[in-house]
Amino acid sequence: MGQTVTEKILADHLVEGELTPGEEIGIEIDQVLTQDTTGTMVWLQFEALELDEVQTELAAQYCDHQTYQFDFKNTDDHRFLRSAAGTFGAHFSRPGNGICHNVHKENFAAPGKTLLGSDSHTPTPGGLGQLAIGAGGLDIAVAMGGGAYYVEMPEVVNVRLEGELPAWSTAKDVILEMLRQLSVKGGVGKVFEYTGPGVETLSVPERTTITNMGTELGATSSIFPTDEKTKDFLKRVGREDEHVDLQPDDDAEYADELVIDLSDLEPLIAKPSMPDNVVPVREVAGESVDQVIIGSCTNGGYADILPAAKMLEGREVDKKTDLIVAPGSKQASEILARQGWTAEMMAAGVNFSEATCGACIGIGHVPASDSVSLRTFNRNFEGRSGIEDDSVYLCSPEVATAAALKGEIVDPRDLADELGDLEDPGLELPDQYDGSKADLIAPDEAVDDDLIKGPNIGDVPLKDPLQSHLAGEALLKMTDNITTDHIIPATSDILKFRSNVPKLSEFTLSRVDESFAQRALDADGGFLVAGENYGQGSSREHAALCPMYLGIEGVLAQSFARIHKANLFNFGLVPLTIDEDTYEKIEQGDDVEIVDDVGDGVRSGQEEFTVRVNDDWEATAQLDASERERKILAAGGKLSWTKQQYDEGESGATPADD
Amino acid sequence: MGQTVTEKILADHLVEGELTPGEEIGIEIDQVLTQDTTGTMVWLQFEALELDEVQTELAAQYCDHQTYQFDFKNTDDHRFLRSAAGTFGAHFSRPGNGICHNVHKENFAAPGKTLLGSDSHTPTPGGLGQLAIGAGGLDIAVAMGGGAYYVEMPEVVNVRLEGELPAWSTAKDVILEMLRQLSVKGGVGKVFEYTGPGVETLSVPERTTITNMGTELGATSSIFPTDEKTKDFLKRVGREDEHVDLQPDDDAEYADELVIDLSDLEPLIAKPSMPDNVVPVREVAGESVDQVIIGSCTNGGYADILPAAKMLEGREVDKKTDLIVAPGSKQASEILARQGWTAEMMAAGVNFSEATCGACIGIGHVPASDSVSLRTFNRNFEGRSGIEDDSVYLCSPEVATAAALKGEIVDPRDLADELGDLEDPGLELPDQYDGSKADLIAPDEAVDDDLIKGPNIGDVPLKDPLQSHLAGEALLKMTDNITTDHIIPATSDILKFRSNVPKLSEFTLSRVDESFAQRALDADGGFLVAGENYGQGSSREHAALCPMYLGIEGVLAQSFARIHKANLFNFGLVPLTIDEDTYEKIEQGDDVEIVDDVGDGVRSGQEEFTVRVNDDWEATAQLDASERERKILAAGGKLSWTKQQYDEGESGATPADD
Repeated sequence: MGQTVTEKILADHLVEGELTPGEEIGIEIDQVLTQDTTGTMVWLQFEALELDEVQTELAAQYCDHQTYQFDFKNTDDHRFLRSAAGTFGAHFSRPGNGICHNVHKENFAAPGKTLLGSDSHTPTPGGLGQLAIGAGGLDIAVAMGGGAYYVEMPEVVNVRLEGELPAWSTAKDVILEMLRQLSVKGGVGKVFEYTGPGVETLSVPERTTITNMGTELGATSSIFPTDEKTKDFLKRVGREDEHVDLQPDDDAEYADELVIDLSDLEPLIAKPSMPDNVVPVREVAGESVDQVIIGSCTNGGYADILPAAKMLEGREVDKKTDLIVAPGSKQASEILARQGWTAEMMAAGVNFSEATCGACIGIGHVPASDSVSLRTFNRNFEGRSGIEDDSVYLCSPEVATAAALKGEIVDPRDLADELGDLEDPGLELPDQYDGSKADLIAPDEAVDDDLIKGPNIGDVPLKDPLQSHLAGEALLKMTDNITTDHIIPATSDILKFRSNVPKLSEFTLSRVDESFAQRALDADGGFLVAGENYGQGSSREHAALCPMYLGIEGVLAQSFARIHKANLFNFGLVPLTIDEDTYEKIEQGDDVEIVDDVGDGVRSGQEEFTVRVNDDWEATAQLDASERERKILAAGGKLSWTKQQYDEGESGATPADD
Repeated sequence: MGQTVTEKILADHLVEGELTPGEEIGIEIDQVLTQDTTGTMVWLQFEALELDEVQTELAAQYCDHQTYQFDFKNTDDHRFLRSAAGTFGAHFSRPGNGICHNVHKENFAAPGKTLLGSDSHTPTPGGLGQLAIGAGGLDIAVAMGGGAYYVEMPEVVNVRLEGELPAWSTAKDVILEMLRQLSVKGGVGKVFEYTGPGVETLSVPERTTITNMGTELGATSSIFPTDEKTKDFLKRVGREDEHVDLQPDDDAEYADELVIDLSDLEPLIAKPSMPDNVVPVREVAGESVDQVIIGSCTNGGYADILPAAKMLEGREVDKKTDLIVAPGSKQASEILARQGWTAEMMAAGVNFSEATCGACIGIGHVPASDSVSLRTFNRNFEGRSGIEDDSVYLCSPEVATAAALKGEIVDPRDLADELGDLEDPGLELPDQYDGSKADLIAPDEAVDDDLIKGPNIGDVPLKDPLQSHLAGEALLKMTDNITTDHIIPATSDILKFRSNVPKLSEFTLSRVDESFAQRALDADGGFLVAGENYGQGSSREHAALCPMYLGIEGVLAQSFARIHKANLFNFGLVPLTIDEDTYEKIEQGDDVEIVDDVGDGVRSGQEEFTVRVNDDWEATAQLDASERERKILAAGGKLSWTKQQYDEGESGATPADD
């Protein structure tokens, strides 16, 4: 039987299991990436595992989220990360050098390789044929130690692209259309593999916009085959020799197929406050716009900003609208500056920013109260911009720029008609991505060989092995689609405590219920209850680590987002699936007891557990876990389990499979 | 008798009093400037005065301090300021357009005019012959209403410049040498007027570096005569017609004279944590440097950044040192970008920032713990960078760049010797400051005609008229040189409450004693006790407004900084001067009572008041106040007093003199 591109790469890297959808497989990881808000914990875990040196082909530590360094804790984190990269043998990208996905794409991403990253948008280089997966930080630490990465074999869905994008429609509209059709849950347990004649019409930067934002579908990853466009891009970034031919076999079988005719697409926009709330731009035209931001890992590359620059040349931003451009990488910034486009943008009224994730996670340029912000980002979860009740729209750079020029939402086709001299700027790549590497410190250039820990950089908390008897209050009942932004917000006042778990835990679920953290601590054990798709969004493992620190024993939800569920196992919290009736019936404050011996049950492979509520009624909850996940859970989490493996005599840097 | 330049401008604008040092004079104000952290209160006060339109020739509202907008409150402030500028007829400079002093210098500063600004570095355009004075926001509001500005006639000190700066010495070294000789108290009650043959060797940007940082001497203002260099600068900014010849008369008499031979100056640096802690750079050479920042109103212009860019061209920043460049104006940024320098700097490893005050007031790029930061700024008060126990050095862009290249403090002359091919970049101005004005909204382009207030924008608190009997606890005893940064810190977590006095007051003097604000509220009245030079530093009137809100009735200090003392009057707090013995004897927690009838005494011109402490011992305290200041104090502050004037039938927008 023929193979998909996904299957080919997985088969090449398989160390355990079979490529059967739903079955757990273990794969070898070639490259890892970490960023500053998740990286500190990764390296503290790597240190706790008492490992000496990174074992993957390549590891890269980026500083991109909190580059404004609003607090010394941010700057201390960056210094610690530089010291960790130096000590353990990773590349270090300095603050201001750009967003991990952009810098990785330009410098390291390679077709056919596996990449594991502690950021949910890690799948970005799928656009050039790399199989890239986001994971919790602890999985990264173990992979860096040479251990395999375990994941449920996803279903591979064929997204067949036909036709060609018409003027003013972009790659962003392709992924917005996917979200419109499939919703933010539509990709759970799946890899979207793009095929068909439309593929060759898209450049690598366009492809990476699509694979990047595949994360918003809940997908495990997204991937394109490689072709002349891939080779061309690799040549422009000076790594032509890394090209590998990767095409699905003619008789490859896909679990599902979706056809998108590119020529049917018109400019789309995601309305507040979910990325799948997608409509044609014309449907919301006329809405006054206070702020526009162009940038992010989705649309912050040279090829994304240049169209905006061309549209702005010789024009001025509307006086009531602020336009901020935050490039995805300093290399893009440098090339744009060298070509004169930065000056043109400034002249038009752009506030040209450092290369940072920044505003995308509520760090800087927080919208004014009761205002509208258009952004080229990938997420508009309510409150993520840094203010509750925000109105954040997601769109292409072209749609964003049109709004900045007019001061209101407008389909760029209509603006072009209105202005007469505004043309679709099209897409263009630099001949060479020839920016300086001054801010990318290779392992052999490292300036540190010891860890430098500031006073805010704490220890990694460990959990005891799973108890036999689990009981406690249902401390919080939540709705569907609770994101990791709800669980641990990423705004700057909170982000600075990412290396300080006791302090960070005080903010756990504060956006749902401000009293939760204190109630959880007081209760000394208890459960969370949620609806569908619990833990979607960012990969941050703190969303499991902090509830663990507060004493939460388990989560009862109708369904879980993939990365977050893995994080729950990794930190020893029992993820139990309940049906809708049970969800409806259980109330916050109810006494919940798992009737079975949980420790034994988890170890022995038991799948159904009886939940007794208020000593009054019972329901059945499912534990869907591999044997490996059960061992991790029983040990009190992956760190305890991995250490236990080492203590039991497994030698070297490679944690044992089990 | 001949006149100094200062006297000439004052005489031209005098509406009350005589030009006798120490006497209060009232002068007409031609221009006002406000920035975002003081401006919101200015406009709320302007609104409270029920005035319709700005009466000065020109008013300009800048957004420069909190341009990163890390909280919606910042963004709301900016929107409010745009709406106020539009409503009342001021120019509005958008966030990202640059620092008030730089943008004002490039666009509006004019020889012979008076400028009043709600920022302590307002004297900057003294470098082109404008008499510019920093003041509390309320004074600005009244001046915008057409009222005179009252100030003690300063002594005019002649700073005679001889010789010419040698290679690698700069204007920054001139003002650092002044600080070394005179200390941060050396300019109190004085205007420094620069004369002599050295003047013509300095360009306007060099002169404004000196006048800008004259503030650190405690000076009322600093000023240069005008000449061909002034005319040349005005031509480059497209305002040649605003040139006015301004020279002191040959027989002008100065209160004092100081001679500085420019040719004697070597590269200097202010060590932590006071701007007058100045030594030759060579004395601290070898100190490892973690962070370097080039920018600020002192050294953020085109002429300041270009030398750094030239030094960096073809080189790379040391890998353990972060170099951030934050231009003073977007115009400078745009010209540097257009000329290719921005790309060169990025290539060298510079993190090129938005145009902002930012890090200078602890907003962004806060140093790591236990680290060294070199900055081209004007202040290094302990903690101002955003972290306690910081090690911030102040120096020229050349010294800063040398440190960034070497990773440690180094005299650039020694680095030039070491490298062989590093030359003094010298000083160069652009032929034309021809950047776009897209971010400067003139009154006739305004987009708002109503105030837009977000939920954090509160009311202006008012104080009752002065009581007859003042008594209370000495709630806090402080040392010499307490800055307004100690009284109301400007770090980003606090700055966002500048428009919300009840909330902001919670942070009052928290850097001296965290329990103070609550203790003051609980005490319902009381006194502050301080040593010499109380209230130096930033002009922020919140340093008087917040203690007033907390119920503080008066301050007993050995001496007061000028702007802060005016702010105490303006908010109805009695500033009493005590001698050293009294200062030594009085303890925190003592019961303090003013024996005299304070209300009557203040109104009637009484200068000595008897302070009774713990019902045990007595001392004499001085009230040094003009008749006008006494009326203001008696009325409960300037806002109450000005409203009272209007209510008593004074018509029009001009508050009555008294």
